Amino acid sequence: MTAHRKTNGDTAANFARRHIGPSARDVTAMLETVSAKSVDALMAETLPASIRQAAPLDLGKPLSETEAIAHMTELGRQNQVFTSLIGQGYSGTILPAVIQRNILENPAWYTAYTPYQPEISQGRLEALLNFQTMICDLTGLDVANASLLDEATAAAEAMALAERHSKVEAKAFFVDKDVHPQTLAVMRTRAEPLGWELIVGDPLTDLDNADVLGALLQYPGSSGAVRDLRPAIAVLKAKGALAIVAADLLALTLLASPGELGADIAIGSAQRFGVPMGYGGPHAAYMSVRDALKRSLPGRIVGLSVDSRGAPAYRLALQTREQHIRREKATSNICTAQVLLAVIASMYAVYHGPEGLTQIARNVYRRTAVLATGLRKLGFTLQSDSFFDTLSVDAGTQRAEIIARALAEKINLGVSDTALRIALDETTTPATLEAVWRAFGGTLAYAEIDAETREALPDGLKRATSFLTHPVFHAHRSETEMLRYMRKLSDRDLALDRAMIPLGSCTMKLNATTEMMPLTWPEFGSLHPFVPREQAAGYHALFARLEKWLCDITGYDAISLQPNSGAQGEYAGLLAIRGYHAARGESHRKICLIPSSAHGTNPASAAMVGMHVVVVACEKNGDVDVNDLRAKAEKHSNDLAAVMITYPSTHGVFEEHIREICDIVHGHGGQVYLDGANLNAQVGLSRPGDYGADVSHLNLHKTFCIPHGGGGPGMGPIGVKAHLAPFLPGHPTTQADAPVGPVSAAPFGSASILTISYVYILMMGGEGLKRATEIAILNANYIAARLDPHFPVLYKNAKGRVAHECIVDPRPLKTTSGVTVDDIAKRLIDYGFHAPTMSFPVPGTLMIEPTESESKAELDRFCDAMIAIRKEIAEVEAGRFKIEASPLRHAPHTVHDIADDDWNRAYTRSEGCFPAGTSRTDKYWSPVGRVDNVYGDRNLVCSCPPVSDYAEAAE
Amino acid sequence: MTAHRKTNGDTAANFARRHIGPSARDVTAMLETVSAKSVDALMAETLPASIRQAAPLDLGKPLSETEAIAHMTELGRQNQVFTSLIGQGYSGTILPAVIQRNILENPAWYTAYTPYQPEISQGRLEALLNFQTMICDLTGLDVANASLLDEATAAAEAMALAERHSKVEAKAFFVDKDVHPQTLAVMRTRAEPLGWELIVGDPLTDLDNADVLGALLQYPGSSGAVRDLRPAIAVLKAKGALAIVAADLLALTLLASPGELGADIAIGSAQRFGVPMGYGGPHAAYMSVRDALKRSLPGRIVGLSVDSRGAPAYRLALQTREQHIRREKATSNICTAQVLLAVIASMYAVYHGPEGLTQIARNVYRRTAVLATGLRKLGFTLQSDSFFDTLSVDAGTQRAEIIARALAEKINLGVSDTALRIALDETTTPATLEAVWRAFGGTLAYAEIDAETREALPDGLKRATSFLTHPVFHAHRSETEMLRYMRKLSDRDLALDRAMIPLGSCTMKLNATTEMMPLTWPEFGSLHPFVPREQAAGYHALFARLEKWLCDITGYDAISLQPNSGAQGEYAGLLAIRGYHAARGESHRKICLIPSSAHGTNPASAAMVGMHVVVVACEKNGDVDVNDLRAKAEKHSNDLAAVMITYPSTHGVFEEHIREICDIVHGHGGQVYLDGANLNAQVGLSRPGDYGADVSHLNLHKTFCIPHGGGGPGMGPIGVKAHLAPFLPGHPTTQADAPVGPVSAAPFGSASILTISYVYILMMGGEGLKRATEIAILNANYIAARLDPHFPVLYKNAKGRVAHECIVDPRPLKTTSGVTVDDIAKRLIDYGFHAPTMSFPVPGTLMIEPTESESKAELDRFCDAMIAIRKEIAEVEAGRFKIEASPLRHAPHTVHDIADDDWNRAYTRSEGCFPAGTSRTDKYWSPVGRVDNVYGDRNLVCSCPPVSDYAEAAE
Repeated sequence: MTAHRKTNGDTAANFARRHIGPSARDVTAMLETVSAKSVDALMAETLPASIRQAAPLDLGKPLSETEAIAHMTELGRQNQVFTSLIGQGYSGTILPAVIQRNILENPAWYTAYTPYQPEISQGRLEALLNFQTMICDLTGLDVANASLLDEATAAAEAMALAERHSKVEAKAFFVDKDVHPQTLAVMRTRAEPLGWELIVGDPLTDLDNADVLGALLQYPGSSGAVRDLRPAIAVLKAKGALAIVAADLLALTLLASPGELGADIAIGSAQRFGVPMGYGGPHAAYMSVRDALKRSLPGRIVGLSVDSRGAPAYRLALQTREQHIRREKATSNICTAQVLLAVIASMYAVYHGPEGLTQIARNVYRRTAVLATGLRKLGFTLQSDSFFDTLSVDAGTQRAEIIARALAEKINLGVSDTALRIALDETTTPATLEAVWRAFGGTLAYAEIDAETREALPDGLKRATSFLTHPVFHAHRSETEMLRYMRKLSDRDLALDRAMIPLGSCTMKLNATTEMMPLTWPEFGSLHPFVPREQAAGYHALFARLEKWLCDITGYDAISLQPNSGAQGEYAGLLAIRGYHAARGESHRKICLIPSSAHGTNPASAAMVGMHVVVVACEKNGDVDVNDLRAKAEKHSNDLAAVMITYPSTHGVFEEHIREICDIVHGHGGQVYLDGANLNAQVGLSRPGDYGADVSHLNLHKTFCIPHGGGGPGMGPIGVKAHLAPFLPGHPTTQADAPVGPVSAAPFGSASILTISYVYILMMGGEGLKRATEIAILNANYIAARLDPHFPVLYKNAKGRVAHECIVDPRPLKTTSGVTVDDIAKRLIDYGFHAPTMSFPVPGTLMIEPTESESKAELDRFCDAMIAIRKEIAEVEAGRFKIEASPLRHAPHTVHDIADDDWNRAYTRSEGCFPAGTSRTDKYWSPVGRVDNVYGDRNLVCSCPPVSDYAEAAE
Repeated sequence: MTAHRKTNGDTAANFARRHIGPSARDVTAMLETVSAKSVDALMAETLPASIRQAAPLDLGKPLSETEAIAHMTELGRQNQVFTSLIGQGYSGTILPAVIQRNILENPAWYTAYTPYQPEISQGRLEALLNFQTMICDLTGLDVANASLLDEATAAAEAMALAERHSKVEAKAFFVDKDVHPQTLAVMRTRAEPLGWELIVGDPLTDLDNADVLGALLQYPGSSGAVRDLRPAIAVLKAKGALAIVAADLLALTLLASPGELGADIAIGSAQRFGVPMGYGGPHAAYMSVRDALKRSLPGRIVGLSVDSRGAPAYRLALQTREQHIRREKATSNICTAQVLLAVIASMYAVYHGPEGLTQIARNVYRRTAVLATGLRKLGFTLQSDSFFDTLSVDAGTQRAEIIARALAEKINLGVSDTALRIALDETTTPATLEAVWRAFGGTLAYAEIDAETREALPDGLKRATSFLTHPVFHAHRSETEMLRYMRKLSDRDLALDRAMIPLGSCTMKLNATTEMMPLTWPEFGSLHPFVPREQAAGYHALFARLEKWLCDITGYDAISLQPNSGAQGEYAGLLAIRGYHAARGESHRKICLIPSSAHGTNPASAAMVGMHVVVVACEKNGDVDVNDLRAKAEKHSNDLAAVMITYPSTHGVFEEHIREICDIVHGHGGQVYLDGANLNAQVGLSRPGDYGADVSHLNLHKTFCIPHGGGGPGMGPIGVKAHLAPFLPGHPTTQADAPVGPVSAAPFGSASILTISYVYILMMGGEGLKRATEIAILNANYIAARLDPHFPVLYKNAKGRVAHECIVDPRPLKTTSGVTVDDIAKRLIDYGFHAPTMSFPVPGTLMIEPTESESKAELDRFCDAMIAIRKEIAEVEAGRFKIEASPLRHAPHTVHDIADDDWNRAYTRSEGCFPAGTSRTDKYWSPVGRVDNVYGDRNLVCSCPPVSDYAEAAE
């Protein structure tokens, strides 16, 4: 009777048990395999005693999934969903239900990883190629990337691109005064450390005399004005400067494209193509360029290539431009995209097609014209008579009264220094317009005003060119066809809903359904980022509690939730260090020490804030060479700004000397930036803020369950010690006077997905989080123990332990058999797995991170596959077949291979397609054979090719 | 400028455009193919002028998807979600979020069809086998079916089964007085037309002297009492009578099973295993029986068999017992299950496992014991001191006051004649208990009462046997494993999210996402069916409007939303006719005329209401032989009860003589039952109520978009003319004095899914519905036109038109080539299609219904596949290979086939697996080869076999 009273707590309440893969019995078996007496003992052998956290994490009683949903419902109620006519780059939009359910709420899409392994990513790569095609078509430019973080960072990236390509020597850049304020603010943040001057003015009047390398023009302007930018662009061209146009995609269905106007670069946001505003994000920004600039385009680009049979296959193009390769020579630290949101925006275009989009734009424009008629009738003057969806009105002395009346109608107006702004969108109804008129003091009937409204898009700016002519934008108009298209694409991909994705340093853990639910509720999705704060009370309660939790977890004193990717977090963290030195009169401190093993994004970020990178050597065992670090810190003592260090190291080991490293750097006046990529090995066990770090970014999309979305969204908040807190990113709408400007367009970054991490912590509690970390470490040591006899584990600590990931080394086998790390990675696809991280941080090796969410059964399936691959390599060594003729080199095997009537390989079909231990029935089939990257980069095709190309290639 | 003002309505608003597959351009092309001048002209050639509807359907302005969601949100707000402690067979439950999103909200599961084609249904068949295993294990009986409609109909079915197998001659049946009232009411409805007497009493005292063929006992009782039923069962056994136990599955984790108590049959509801109450349904009921009764078990049974390679494969077992084959000899008209809900319940068990379920039961029991202690402390006496989750309290004079106080606490109590009932469940919290105590007049603290509570499950009834020992109930406990298991199973199946399912008479149309959304909102999902009506105001507003719309659409005067399947609708309709005759003193009218072409359910339903079936001949062209009908109506003029006729006919043709048929039957005092299975050919074009029908059932899961769910849920409301309205089904909770009793456990059947049909009509409007019907007819005629040259279309009307489906006839090819209709059906799988309806209504033929939702592209893909198959048949005819050696006979081809190193077939691998025109990349692979039905029926295995069996068979 008493026995079960002990467990009288709701069993369903124990979410941690659902999040963590191995059962108690599995854990016992695994401890035996790794020869550890207990989980505690394993932790003691893995982490240095000097950094172990003393007090247990206390984050309050964890909630059950049901309780968490009830709690989030309550928080959601504290947000008020008004009709936001604020504009400024964010619009109401209708996400078609079929896309919401089958992409945004579908794990096949949201749990996918960045498409580095193109063979198992053909579905989302096609969707991204559709996105690029859509951007190219609408902007009238040649090449588009697969999305950027937000419009403001896209503008900053475009400025940096222009700086490299401009023929003008001056380091000054012109910004349209009618640009969105947050865009200008982010550009200022970016320009200042690099010493670039920003000149703000009217492009139609102020450009002539400006000695600038380029200019950013907004189209339509933030005020709503639709101006003919051709004269301004002509002036820029004449100077040899580059013209960047920030353009609204929906407006471009009616207006001449930036390319037609002469722009070199177009940027903007794809948010209004079906992506909820989400109080700031996530959304996909875009950038497209003229052909001449394509090799400098930042971010990821999807291109077409061919596979081993010569059939068309998509893959990421021009990888060599990327920051993780170019390190401090990189011109941007961008290393992700907003894939999930770009996919949604592309599907919105597939769903509506060109006529549908045009019709939506016409409706929006028509409503705006009717609104204008009404406002004029009420005696107001518009700032511009040429507009698309936004009107700016000088309300004079009635301003406050109008705003108040609008709020009483549950309408948010845009407010600028000089005007009230009313921005309409797809969701605007006649009733909304009548309410706006009432706010402006009059009672008008929509139908009457409609009848007397004439439209007035400037003739010279009307779009005359076609767009979205590719069949994909015409073939899926019924919901049935749309559904099947999305299913077809997702079936081509391998995501977490089918198999482990053992990516080192990427922490592909469970993205639990309950964590994912609130973000598509209107109470979280429908808030404009610039609504009055009291309308977002639920969000702010969530932010405050999340910040407190993250401080408790990391030992930091303050958090900024603004950076919307890990790289943005690094950048914001270094800006904080820079600001701190500057405030102490030590702006000369510009040396940033970075170990040779660091991820390339570290030096790229340092370069972006004007720091100079000094590389610190590593020892043979992978640890930072403390003597070299000490020597370099001493040498640069006067100018030392920071060290950037990843902990546990990128080699997957808790180095013993981390405290000493922090002390050395501090001793020379430097700050410690601790890269939080590997925080999943520390939560509940050790706190960076306790052992010497001053600032870290926290990849919420790794450690805190935001799904990877196929390559974004992410969130990279930073935590800092108190002395750096004043230097966290500001924002014009929340903290305009902060010493450091904003790094993202929205003050709280991609706010809506913070709900995911919040719910995760809410349901795990401190004890659950600690348990997760322990099991993540156990899982990694289990894999290391099982694989070591077959593929040596490269780095361990003195007690033979790895942290939460391990690197296995197949390089010796290259000598004996010719096998490459690529062969192993692609062969794993035949076994039904996504490959581990390849050649990072050590070329030719594989880094494996299992995370706590994988069960022993799945770990064993993976280890068995690796061991079976080792046996296949042994067959090459033994001379059964040459590596070129082996199933390893021919991997992945496709149905095209197996159906080949002329099979003349050195192994059987079964050996090729169904290697040892794999199930036939539920086999994942790679839709293409091994993709030829070189061919694709030589023959760059980055938008949907004519259908005939596919047919030809297939023949 | 004016051009686009005409289309200024929101483009997204036009849902009909998304629901209907063919575009305007497609329609033009298709009209040409079918040689029709216009859609109107085609309709004129298809439907008899005499039945054409004069006035257009006016159902109000259609809403856009966004507007519909807003409207449903508002309706939902009108429902009040109280904590229902009513019990009576319905409990609060927690549907794990991962199951909600990935099954209930996932089109791969909910759009699937009944698994008649086992090869493409292995995923849901496995889930159903898990369900059966769970039921067998928990009830301690040998064989379970794959679910029934609800507990009350399951009880009626069990009674009928007992009647056939009892050794007692008397036609009397004993019903426990502690059975749920709705169960008793449904049994009364069932027993009365068959002349069976029901004796209600206490099984422990009243059975000895009762001359009964069997008895239904409730365990625990509806009052909550847990009684040892062994003595009662022993009495029944001694008589040769059958013992049926209605058992609560959760209680069975703690209590000795019905099988152990000696029961022959167990029935009950699986609702509380994760399925929302939904104001009545849908839920899965269950039935399990001793081995000796298995061949009489009603409903569907999943069994294990082997495929063409001898590997294990699931399929529906014992099909020959089914009502569509046995017709008037059938003992039940049940022809569907609640597959989607059974799958959810089975997944709930997979997710929790035996320990998890036991723990939930222990928690519920513990809370109930604590509640009991508190109530006693407050001076109340419990009706039974032995209970599981439900207490009954004689509240005496305080009764009304307590009910009112509970309502003030937002708690619904159960109310019976003699007591107040408090039924707890998985969602009950200590706070709920404290609120209940307050309602009973006292302030008690849970913790204190908990401390002084002793538990008291009767020792002799404690469960001692294990259950759910199969590995499937142990391997998927983490969310990650659970997610992957569900994905794996769904990938084995072919549903509407991947391809057309051209099933004649089954109307597999789009189940739009927006239609599916509201039903999982708590405002619709969390309502107990017996809450006070004012708490369900949103539901009742929806019912009223839906009834009005369905009357407008059909021309009837009244609707009953109670029948929760098409067969239940038939049964309810015939009961109405029977009641009508009886009320006029013409109870002798028992002859039911049924054309030979009718679906077997028709005669089975007639038999259930005690009618005698007289078969009416059909003419060669498939039409009813009007002369034969007239002759038989005349012959039986005095006793004629009804005619049951399907229109358009099961042959897919609008017969010219429908009005005449109705007139003949009316002329002889009979009523016209018009089977609504083919209503999708009539909506907006003709109304049964206008041309002579008196009653029809409407398959909302066919015509009105409720998804098939893999074989249920469905809804079969009936529409009647005014004279039959008094004879619609009553219900003890809403209309206890109705002349006809209830046919379903809940007064509004599976109320929650009525939201689907409601939203569909809401968004289509009258014009959209009419257009859908027209295009459904156009699509069918298009297929007929394309296929006729290759497979003759068997029936057309005088103008050469088919209705919304067509029958193609491959029988002549059997002579020339040996090909069977099975070969064609299975070969279609290789082409990526679900087969059309096989051998109904004409053996050896295929009936194809495309519906309006399929695009021309998909219709062409299907027609191309059929034509390619015809070419393959021609190759047999030409002697390239014998039929036994042909790809037709070997279909479907699996990866096992294609990987076979010893390929020695008469055709190539490519020809086998990738026949003409099919895509390799996105191929659907049948997980098993052709399934051997005979083997499975001979070696009946209907629960999960030991894992070793799979291994052996695979070798």
